[in-house]
Amino acid sequence: MIIGVGIDVCPVERFAVSLTRTPGLRDRLFTPAELQTPSGAPRTGESLAARFAAKEALAKALGAPGDLHWHDAEVIVGDHGRPLLDVRGTVARRAAVLGVTGWYVSLSHDGGIASAVVIAEGPDGPAAP
Amino acid sequence: MIIGVGIDVCPVERFAVSLTRTPGLRDRLFTPAELQTPSGAPRTGESLAARFAAKEALAKALGAPGDLHWHDAEVIVGDHGRPLLDVRGTVARRAAVLGVTGWYVSLSHDGGIASAVVIAEGPDGPAAP
Amino acid sequence: MIIGVGIDVCPVERFAVSLTRTPGLRDRLFTPAELQTPSGAPRTGESLAARFAAKEALAKALGAPGDLHWHDAEVIVGDHGRPLLDVRGTVARRAAVLGVTGWYVSLSHDGGIASAVVIAEGPDGPAAP
Repeated sequence: MIIGVGIDVCPVERFAVSLTRTPGLRDRLFTPAELQTPSGAPRTGESLAARFAAKEALAKALGAPGDLHWHDAEVIVGDHGRPLLDVRGTVARRAAVLGVTGWYVSLSHDGGIASAVVIAEGPDGPAAP
Repeated sequence: MIIGVGIDVCPVERFAVSLTRTPGLRDRLFTPAELQTPSGAPRTGESLAARFAAKEALAKALGAPGDLHWHDAEVIVGDHGRPLLDVRGTVARRAAVLGVTGWYVSLSHDGGIASAVVIAEGPDGPAAP
Repeated sequence: MIIGVGIDVCPVERFAVSLTRTPGLRDRLFTPAELQTPSGAPRTGESLAARFAAKEALAKALGAPGDLHWHDAEVIVGDHGRPLLDVRGTVARRAAVLGVTGWYVSLSHDGGIASAVVIAEGPDGPAAP
């Protein structure tokens, strides 16, 4: 059963400007591991924008409670570069309350537009409100 | 089991122009409740464009049968501003035929692009064609 | 249970330029059936871009293994123009390994942006890694 779905679209150029203008934003949004590719190169602006979109989409899938920490939802890299979500702390607690047992994420960036979709799945569907 | 999925992307500026140029379009597409925020302010063009995208995505998730009324799929606002779908009439009947028992929706608007994704879920998967 | 989700966003204009500049690309990406509408007219650039996005989204839903053939995932047209996925060969084999038994796809193109989302579903969720 699905618990929630989230989508987010992020203009790459504007996001890159925000990262440049706001000191500390990059480190507040992303974990050290997220700031690098698996080979150790710094991630491009469009790759970071897609990861930001994934975090926004994940928050929406959890009902956007507003008390989630950016570092508590990490986009990690699996086989063949497949993105996976690793959650902890504030995000894991919210997910546990809702009964989330599985996460599915996909990223896209092309033509200046980064986007992501996230599905949160559980064995029993959403808890009664 | 999933019954259907829908995605829609709507350029905000063009949608706003359509609303301005076509008398009655705003009221044909949206219910009175959708035209306002929970606090009673008129919704912005980008917020309406995202709601239009949600209605289009919902129709796609139902196989776009073409006889759905815009007011029969309403985007309502849940806790923390979370969008939810309330269906009735033409949409509820089509959903019943397909076995839909749950709706999941997410909206996004940023950089002039509104988008939405909708998933229709049921206990048994799609009915045999 | 969900096996994977994929999203892809494709700028229509740039995709059309690629099709024009790269001889053979059109036939490498699309089956003869995909290049025409059900009524036999040639598909527009935006319709092809949306189909390309669907193939990319499908590959992401399968973990982007990199050895999938473009023709092995075909977007076909069902009732009311609803897009459906027909998979074979490399794609069907990868799907079988992961336990995929159902495919859901949705396409969108508007304002120069084509996009698609794909969900792969199975009875048992993803196989153990």
